[in-house]
Formats: sequence, structure tokens, C-alpha cells
Amino acid sequence: MVRTRRLGAWGFEGESYEPSPALLDWLAGRLGPAAPLPRAAPGSITLPAPGRLPPLGAPASAEAHDRLAHARGQGLPDLLRLRAERIAAAPDAVVRPADDRETAAVLAACAAAGVTVVPWGGGTSVTGGVNAPGGDRPAIALDLERLAGLGALDERSGLATFGAGTFGPALEAALAERGFTLGHFPQSFQLSTLGGWIATRSSGQESLGYGSVAEMVAGVTLVAPGGRLDLPALPASAAGPDLRAVVLGSEGRLGVVTRATVRVRGRRPPLRATGTLVPSWEAGLDAARAILRAGVPLTLLRISDEAETEVGVTLTLKAHRIAGAAARAWLSIRGVPEHPCIVLAGAPADRAGARALDEAGAALREHGGVGAGDRPGRRWLADRFRHPYLRDALLDRGIAVETVETAAPWSRLQALTREVRAAIEGALGAEGERGAVLCHLSHAYRDGASLYFTFFFRCPADPDRAVSRWAALKRAATEAIVRGGGTVSHHHGVGAFHAPWLAREIGADGVRVIAAAAAALDPAGVMNPRVLLDPVDRLER
Amino acid sequence: MVRTRRLGAWGFEGESYEPSPALLDWLAGRLGPAAPLPRAAPGSITLPAPGRLPPLGAPASAEAHDRLAHARGQGLPDLLRLRAERIAAAPDAVVRPADDRETAAVLAACAAAGVTVVPWGGGTSVTGGVNAPGGDRPAIALDLERLAGLGALDERSGLATFGAGTFGPALEAALAERGFTLGHFPQSFQLSTLGGWIATRSSGQESLGYGSVAEMVAGVTLVAPGGRLDLPALPASAAGPDLRAVVLGSEGRLGVVTRATVRVRGRRPPLRATGTLVPSWEAGLDAARAILRAGVPLTLLRISDEAETEVGVTLTLKAHRIAGAAARAWLSIRGVPEHPCIVLAGAPADRAGARALDEAGAALREHGGVGAGDRPGRRWLADRFRHPYLRDALLDRGIAVETVETAAPWSRLQALTREVRAAIEGALGAEGERGAVLCHLSHAYRDGASLYFTFFFRCPADPDRAVSRWAALKRAATEAIVRGGGTVSHHHGVGAFHAPWLAREIGADGVRVIAAAAAALDPAGVMNPRVLLDPVDRLER
Repeated sequence: MVRTRRLGAWGFEGESYEPSPALLDWLAGRLGPAAPLPRAAPGSITLPAPGRLPPLGAPASAEAHDRLAHARGQGLPDLLRLRAERIAAAPDAVVRPADDRETAAVLAACAAAGVTVVPWGGGTSVTGGVNAPGGDRPAIALDLERLAGLGALDERSGLATFGAGTFGPALEAALAERGFTLGHFPQSFQLSTLGGWIATRSSGQESLGYGSVAEMVAGVTLVAPGGRLDLPALPASAAGPDLRAVVLGSEGRLGVVTRATVRVRGRRPPLRATGTLVPSWEAGLDAARAILRAGVPLTLLRISDEAETEVGVTLTLKAHRIAGAAARAWLSIRGVPEHPCIVLAGAPADRAGARALDEAGAALREHGGVGAGDRPGRRWLADRFRHPYLRDALLDRGIAVETVETAAPWSRLQALTREVRAAIEGALGAEGERGAVLCHLSHAYRDGASLYFTFFFRCPADPDRAVSRWAALKRAATEAIVRGGGTVSHHHGVGAFHAPWLAREIGADGVRVIAAAAAALDPAGVMNPRVLLDPVDRLER
Repeated sequence: MVRTRRLGAWGFEGESYEPSPALLDWLAGRLGPAAPLPRAAPGSITLPAPGRLPPLGAPASAEAHDRLAHARGQGLPDLLRLRAERIAAAPDAVVRPADDRETAAVLAACAAAGVTVVPWGGGTSVTGGVNAPGGDRPAIALDLERLAGLGALDERSGLATFGAGTFGPALEAALAERGFTLGHFPQSFQLSTLGGWIATRSSGQESLGYGSVAEMVAGVTLVAPGGRLDLPALPASAAGPDLRAVVLGSEGRLGVVTRATVRVRGRRPPLRATGTLVPSWEAGLDAARAILRAGVPLTLLRISDEAETEVGVTLTLKAHRIAGAAARAWLSIRGVPEHPCIVLAGAPADRAGARALDEAGAALREHGGVGAGDRPGRRWLADRFRHPYLRDALLDRGIAVETVETAAPWSRLQALTREVRAAIEGALGAEGERGAVLCHLSHAYRDGASLYFTFFFRCPADPDRAVSRWAALKRAATEAIVRGGGTVSHHHGVGAFHAPWLAREIGADGVRVIAAAAAALDPAGVMNPRVLLDPVDRLER
């Protein structure tokens, strides 16, 4: 069954995730009343007329719906713009090369004619990473959907070669047939591709066990207008700087990832996640740090702060008044404070996984944790790829949800949590608005962890005003992240939205080095020019 | 106690590792009789007169012994050249900056005046990575010994910041005082520096447990003539291409690593290694693969092939005739063939380590392994940093020892072992010589492993002829490695000796990308110009 992607909203047609009445009540209490925000029917959206393109050596579609579907990613401003009746920029055509040779021919033709190329995998970028650049130059979206499927499987080495356009479910299905798994499950898993994961240096929800995509890539091919990198699959090497790490995170700026050889593993049973309530965010961080130091082989570790725990757990309990009161009483007897933090620890449901969960449980109890059973984990697992649908459902009701994320050493995490929350709340206050900021930790390392902030605010009906409010919050949050020693992004990438802050992290010379690599592979500068290295703040365009 | 480095030989004055009579007998049988090779007294070696240098902004020594000590690394041709009475090239001065600012000033002065800069850590490169370039341009060795010591320790995050010139023992001692360890133990541990490890993307003997230096570096500073990279310590990031991976392996070609923040761990008891005899190289590889797939938390796994096992284990037994015969009989009863392979499995001597050794033992038994107790492991551990002294002792007797190494996916390892051995033997045959080729696996990964070849050959007394014989063998081995799908180097680096083959691994465009990064940081091209990117075969210079 081929499922149809929704236009201007997350995911597939026929899917949705509606907010509970309890959540809507909670949000109304926090934000005040919000006015519904209509979503334009795709047919009613007008786009700029397509520009003329030279022959590109591969089939090119200038059909309006196709162009619209490749105009923007899934960032909040993208959704806001697509909800309106008119969008300012779209690719002049969508080109779908069949193989490396055709890809190279298209890139050469674009470089010769000055046509901008935006590589397109699953289109789920939330950082403006696949947005049509607009401006005077013609532009195409290079959709890699035909470069898909399992090419080779070296079972002895545990190495699988896939086309970059392979979507998550197809990749795991092809591996499952042979008894393997990759283990890369980002929230966009159902909608994103291997090439997109590589181009954005993606991390999946089970990265604690399986690593980020950077650890998975043994070899990779990048086709560029002015060259080609064909990095062989090697377990390790000291042969100079590792160019795999340059392709990873290159966001289409250096060229197009067409294929990769990834390290796969024998399949294990599906993830089981258990919940534990800890008395505070601080206690959760300390417990996570202890678990990481001890090397407990979990594949998942998530901690929600007090506010996120309230939204994710307590609101559900409150909806069931009697059960809720009983649960509250039970927790109170065990010393759980009124606003605890929930920790989800996960591992495959086999013997080794059970041992890991036991070890993690012991560490959590040492930090005041009280077991909350399998139900919170089961709920999270059931919805793990559905949460983003909630964003569209809330937007319909005039409530915007945005997420920002970072990572930092353990020693900075508590202060950073406070500072980013304060920055978002401060920017909301400057807008005369109240909001709600939730935070969780979802990727932990021996030396630090990621922080993921979700915040809600009332969305003005006028798209320009809405985007402008979003931009003010986004700037404030990113500024606080960079000032507080966090990375510009742990797993969303740089894209266009974070690009102005990249030099704050890696320095102007760091940006120059990446630009030099880009110039070596793309001398004409046609590859995705608005992402990664473009210092101009274009949040509001 | 400050120990004095030997000149033109490995290690410290007063240390040696003499070959056993049994080994000398064995080598004589394999190679034929060899004529002793004298070693010039350091005082008798003549060097080119030092060239005039502009003021460099830091103390510069043009003293002859200092220049000689910084003229070449520890590759076999370096030893051969230094054994003769005359060397062709040496730095015009040795410069020792005190801090980043002085380093930057020196590099700027050198760039302005066209003075070549060869960064110098411990000087143990075996790939020509620190050799004075010779030629018309003046050159300095930039010795980083003053940029040493622990700068900061973030205990909460497990992050330690050290000057790049910190030697292995000083680094571990500073960490041990605070209860931490880095766990990086290359064979050169006692003689090499953190900066050198980073610049060559080094792997230690316990990389299975602690990772390579690439996994250890959280943040790093590189000072270059045309810029500076100051990459902050982050547990993970999706903020574009990872420039840490560009600094790692940059071999002084992009700039000078002055400082790094590394991920440290709580100390565990010292390594314990147990020996197992498996019936064949193939059985050893299969067992290693099974151990890696199962994720057994060893920190060491080494497999010697039949020939290396003969040299390392059987010769010792033969030396004790009665005990040897008894051992032989005992092994024979247990089904161990006459030419087995020894496997060393290692883990810290604590409870978790013992469990790991038990699991590894079970996997080895499933592949026909018979336990050989702790003695082979104890011997290896006692001598692990002393083995290279044997090379000088054998050279004194006219026998050259060289090592080449690579890594490849499991599916290619057996063929690659055969092909590299055949290439070395073939090249020896072309010289009218016989030799002995040993091989071991010392670094294993889920998707493949390293191969390390040690070969012995008779060394002509004339240094040019000796280097020429070495070069013929080196070319043949490297060619076989590259043709067989192995990496140019698993942990020795590219240097000057492997540079002509780098494009075979990463492509001409890969080399161009690194060259573009180098040009961005070093527009005058003064940084270590003969390594990494220089395609000219200079093996015989």
C-alpha cells in the first residue's frame, strides 16, 4: 500500500493525533484562549510560475502539486506558510535521477546553467534544510526516490549497501528479511531516508544502543557537480582526515549522497521500555549520568522534566479521576513529590535487555526513583512516530508547537536547561504572551546529553505575524543555547534556520574550512546554497 | 627521573630487548646468515649546515644534536639512514613555543618567510610523518614539549583538557591522581604525545574497550598559519560536518594541534590477558567475529597467525626442551595441531572483566580453542611497550624488521592476509632473498578488523641499498593492501611513505577536498608539505 504524504502537514493522509481535552484545558490555562487557524486546501495554494530550465538529462516534473510538495520541509514556519494561500518560492521542477550517472549529469547541467539544486530525501527537515531558495536563480528539487533499495549485503561483515533514497521502513524490512537491523529510529523514521539521515548526521531514538548514523556509516558515495567521493566501507582507518565525517552533516551543500554502506546487526526483539518517577530533573540527570558511566547496555534513556511529565503522564491520570487519585496517593506514600520527572529506560525484550533494565532500575532507585511500570513506556512506544501529528492538530486550534534541541557536557546541562527555558519565556513575555516550555533528555553519552525543548504559544492568524513570533522565540532559544555552551543542534541539523549561529560554535575559520571543501566539490556554488554556511538570518522569509 | 631518548633507535637510553638464541636460530634458518650492521655514534653523524632563519617569535635551537634528534622519525628507513654517518636533511632549527599565542606567531612568521614547519610530538612516526623535508626551503621542527600537562578536569562530565605535547605516561599519571584513565595505550605509549595521537588518528592496544583516539576527542584546538579551529567539547552534534574528524589524522598538514579535551573514565584494575590456542588463522578470525557480534566487553583481542605464534610461543617452549615436549604432548592430546594460532583476550582484572573473559573463552572453545592460561598474556603485557627495541637489536645483527598494517571488512580479511604475505614474499624473491612474514589481528570491530604484518629480511650494509630493498618490499605490500580493499593504514597514518597510495583509497577528489581544507588554513603551504597529500613516492630519499 502506497500511502500519500500530507501537504503542509506532517506524515500521511488518514493519520492524525488529536490532543486530549485535558491537554487543551491545560494549554488554555497556560496560554489563554486561541483562535482556530485554517489550513489552505492544497489546490487553492498559488505558487510562482515555474522558470525555464535547460535540459537536465533526467525526467523533470513541473507539475504544480509536485512543485508544491517539494517547496518546503516540515519546520514550523514551513507549515505556517503552507497554511496560507500563497507561497513565495517553489522549485521550478522536481528531478528524479535513476542512478549515479544520471545524478552526475543533472548536477553538471545545473552547474553549467547556474541552476540551484536542493537534494530531497523525505522532506522532513525542520531547519529549512530542503526549502526552495527563491530569488532570481532557477532551482530544482532533486528527489532521490529512485535511488532506493538494498544493493548488496555482506552478511559476514554485517555491511549493507542501500540507495540513499531508501525510506526507513523499506530499509528495515529489507534487512529483517535477512535477519538484520540497522537500529536507526528517528522520530521521522517512517518519512525520512538513509540519505537524509546521513546528510543531517541524524540520531535515532535508540542511539544509546545503536549509535547515531555517524557510527553506522562504514562507506558512502557523494556525487557533486565538480567531483565525487566514493569512500569505501572500512571498519576503521588512520588514512588521514575522515571524509565520511565531512559527508555526514553536509546537508546537500557539498553534493548529493547517493548510496551508503551501513553497519547492521542481528535482529533482537522489539524495544521494551519501563517507567520510573524520580523526584526532580536534577535527580534524573544524576541517575542518567550514573547509568552511562556504568555502561549499562540500554538502547533508550529519556527523562522528561516536571512540566513534560505533567503533560505526558499526570494529565492522563487526571482524566481518570478515581484512578488518578489512587495513583497520586500511592506515589505520595512512596515519597514521590507532586511534580516528579518520568524516566523511560528501554532495551530489547530479551534476557540481556532485561538485565540492562534491572541495572538501570537499581541506579534510578538510588536516585530516589519509584517504578511506574511498563504502561508509560508502552504508550510512548505506541505513539513514538505519531507525536508530530499533534502539532498540526494543535495548529488547527491556533496553538503553535515548536521544538529546539542541543547537547552539552553534563556539567553544563542544568544551567543550560534553565537558561534556554528562561530565554523562551522571556521572548514570549516580550510578545505579551504566556507559553509553556517542556524539556526532555533523549540522548545520553558518557560526557553529556541532549536537551530537547518543546514549547507552545498562541499563533497569530496572519502568517507573517505568526512566523515573526516564531522567529523571535527561535532566535532567543538558539542564542541561549550557543551562549550556554550547547551545540547549535544535536540532531535536527543546521539547515537555513541555524546557519547564522554555526560560526559561534565552530568559529569563522571552521566555516571557512567547510566552505573550502564545498568549493572543491561544487565550484559553481549551485548545491543547496542557503543551508549550513549562509550566515544570513532568513527565519522570516 | 628524566630519561634520555636514543638517537636513531627506538626508545630510551639504557633499555633494550635482545633476541633469544632460539629466535636468531629460527631467523638464520629462514633468511640465511646476516652480516652485522654498525650504528654510527651520534657525534659522528654529519648534517647539512643550518640555513638562516628569520626571527620566529619563540626560542629556536640550531644545536647539532637537537637538529639531529628532530631530523627523522622511527620508520625503518629513518633508522637505516641514521645508522650511517651522514644524513641528507635536518631541520634548520628546533622551535619550542610556550603557548598558543607563541605557536601562532611562529606559524605566521614561517608562512611569511616561506619556512616549512614540521610539528613534532614524540617523533615516533613510522611513516615519514615528521621527517625534515630537505630541499631548498628552510625548515623548522616545531617541538610541542612545552605545551604539556593537564589544563582542566571536568569530573562531572569526565572531560580532561591537556596540552598536545603531553606524553602518554604523564597524561595517565595526571589522570590517575584524580581516579581517571584515558585508556589509550599504543605501542609508542611511553614515547608519544596526545597531539601526535590526534594528528595520526592513533589506536591503542586496548581500543576494543576504550575506542581509538577519534572516539576520545571531545574537543580540540588547531593553530594554523591562516586560521584557527577551536572546536568545543561536545558529547555529540549535528551541526554540520564534524571538523574534529578533519583535525584527527591531519598529520600537521592543516596546522598544529595544541590542546585537546578528551573523554576520560574511572580507573579500573590493570589488564589481564588470557591465552587460547585455536587450530587455524581462519578459526581465530571466526571466533573474533563471533566475540565482536556478541558484544563481549573485552578491551583487548589479538590473534597471531601460525608463523607469529611459532615465533612468539613455540620458540620459547622449544628453548626449554623437556617442558616443551610435555606441553606439546598435552596440546596434542587436546587436538591442537602442530601449528596453532594464539589468541590473547584481555579485560581489566575485575568482576566485569572476568565475566568478559569467560564469555570470550566460551566463544573460542566453540571454534576449537584450547586454553593456554595466563602466561602468554603476562609475557605480552610485560613486554608490550618493549617490542620495538627488538628491531634495533636485530638491525645490529643485520636483520631488518618492518611492519605494515591495514584494516578491512571481515569478508576480505582472509584473502587479504594471503595476498599481502604473497606480495612481500614475492618482492623478497625478486631481490633473491628469503624472508619471514608474520601476521596478527590486533583491533577488531563488528564489521572487520586490522591486520598487522611483521616481516624480517637481511639488510644490506650499504644504506642506499638497504633502503632500496625496504622500499621494494613496502611498495609491494602497500600495493597488495590497496588492491585487496584494505585501508592504507589502520593506525600508523599516511605520512610521506603512504601518501602516494592515498588517492587509491579516497579518490583524487577526496585528496582535493583535504587539500582545499589545508589551503584554507595554510594558504602559504608551509605546514608539513611532504605528508598526506604529496603523491610523489619518496620512499628512497
